[in-house]
Amino acid sequence: MKYLMTFSYDGTSYNGYQKQPNKNTVQDVLEDVLTRINSNNEVSIVASGRTDSGVHAINQKAHFVLDKEVELSKLKDSINKMLPASIYVKNIKIVNDDFHARFNSKRKTYTYKINTGEYNPLEANYVYQYNKKLDIDKMREAIKYFIGEHDFTSFTKASEDKETYIRTIYEASISEDHSIISITFTGNGFLRYMVRNIVGVLIEIGSNKIKVNDVQDILEKKDRREAGITAPSSGLYLMDVEYENEN
Amino acid sequence: MKYLMTFSYDGTSYNGYQKQPNKNTVQDVLEDVLTRINSNNEVSIVASGRTDSGVHAINQKAHFVLDKEVELSKLKDSINKMLPASIYVKNIKIVNDDFHARFNSKRKTYTYKINTGEYNPLEANYVYQYNKKLDIDKMREAIKYFIGEHDFTSFTKASEDKETYIRTIYEASISEDHSIISITFTGNGFLRYMVRNIVGVLIEIGSNKIKVNDVQDILEKKDRREAGITAPSSGLYLMDVEYENEN
Repeated sequence: MKYLMTFSYDGTSYNGYQKQPNKNTVQDVLEDVLTRINSNNEVSIVASGRTDSGVHAINQKAHFVLDKEVELSKLKDSINKMLPASIYVKNIKIVNDDFHARFNSKRKTYTYKINTGEYNPLEANYVYQYNKKLDIDKMREAIKYFIGEHDFTSFTKASEDKETYIRTIYEASISEDHSIISITFTGNGFLRYMVRNIVGVLIEIGSNKIKVNDVQDILEKKDRREAGITAPSSGLYLMDVEYENEN
Repeated sequence: MKYLMTFSYDGTSYNGYQKQPNKNTVQDVLEDVLTRINSNNEVSIVASGRTDSGVHAINQKAHFVLDKEVELSKLKDSINKMLPASIYVKNIKIVNDDFHARFNSKRKTYTYKINTGEYNPLEANYVYQYNKKLDIDKMREAIKYFIGEHDFTSFTKASEDKETYIRTIYEASISEDHSIISITFTGNGFLRYMVRNIVGVLIEIGSNKIKVNDVQDILEKKDRREAGITAPSSGLYLMDVEYENEN
């Protein structure tokens, strides 16, 4: 029986979502719990995608197969009882055998949080402590350049080797709550470091280091060296993953 | 020269505020930094009071003496550069030689946060994950019993040995923001575990385990065994400490 689960995690103490030899990852913890529930027959989970070390998830999604059909609310409770405080399964449902959490993903939403006010030690791992004012109006102008279909070569990891660097951003917006700025992107997919690199450029615009219309040039140059800093992982949240047919 | 500093900390990874042999405390970290600034001549700090393991502070205050007069903004910057990410000095000012951060404190404010919605792994260390509905109207009725001068013997640590258990609560209120309830108390002083024990009783009222007017009996019995659970430390914040004459 194939299941799709929605889960949330505090990425602070993990070496990212994705399994790696000798590392503490979210996937390792979840697979260990599911394997125990599956009478110790190894369970592999397939998520919508990885998140890097320190990145958080509000609604990450992953599919997995169990040998037996388990009552969904009992399954959720059993998993959550075995998980550490930093990971929580919010929902589980049954999906068709051909469902794939990565390949079937249609839209993903990420939010990046920046504190433009005084340093706050209570949110050091949850909001990027930029601690200086930013010109939000300029950032709001600049973010429009990213909407639509673009080649995001300038905004991925320099060494990333992909078939295509073309992605579509459907929506991008900036909201403000006291000194916290939240930047949200919804797109058909995101390259590695793409959100954090876009945020890095938006910060350079908001702090008057570069001009709003420099975004156009940086996109066109298709060269990672053009785009500047990668914003820290602590401010990044995977907010949602959407599928066309989850059932 | 005597200084008064206002500081904030994430209590998650500390064994409380107050110095203890072989423990990692907020006081130890701050004294270590100040001693280095004071040319390695030992500096002791005196805070408004302790906070227990896991309890956070938004505005804790403490006084200390340095051998020399240091420019205040430079002093603040030097301290913050040496502090770990979890502690931050917000403000420093010079006070009279007879100023005492504990004895001169006139009013303290604490806030306790409870999540009545679904479990959130991102706030496991910052908001008590009660994760069930509470009847706020009843809690609001009950909190009124605590306002004024009372003997809080039923609401302190059973083994606490004090000259007097009488304290005055000037203000007490409950606010709600989505699923997060915040309970705030301002008083002339608080006994050990007092806020967490009052919150424990308020939760019993909000979950219909005891009646609103049971508070009166619990206060009158002056017996810790009457009052029920101690709410977890993770939801508690020292919000402010006020002095009559800080200068």
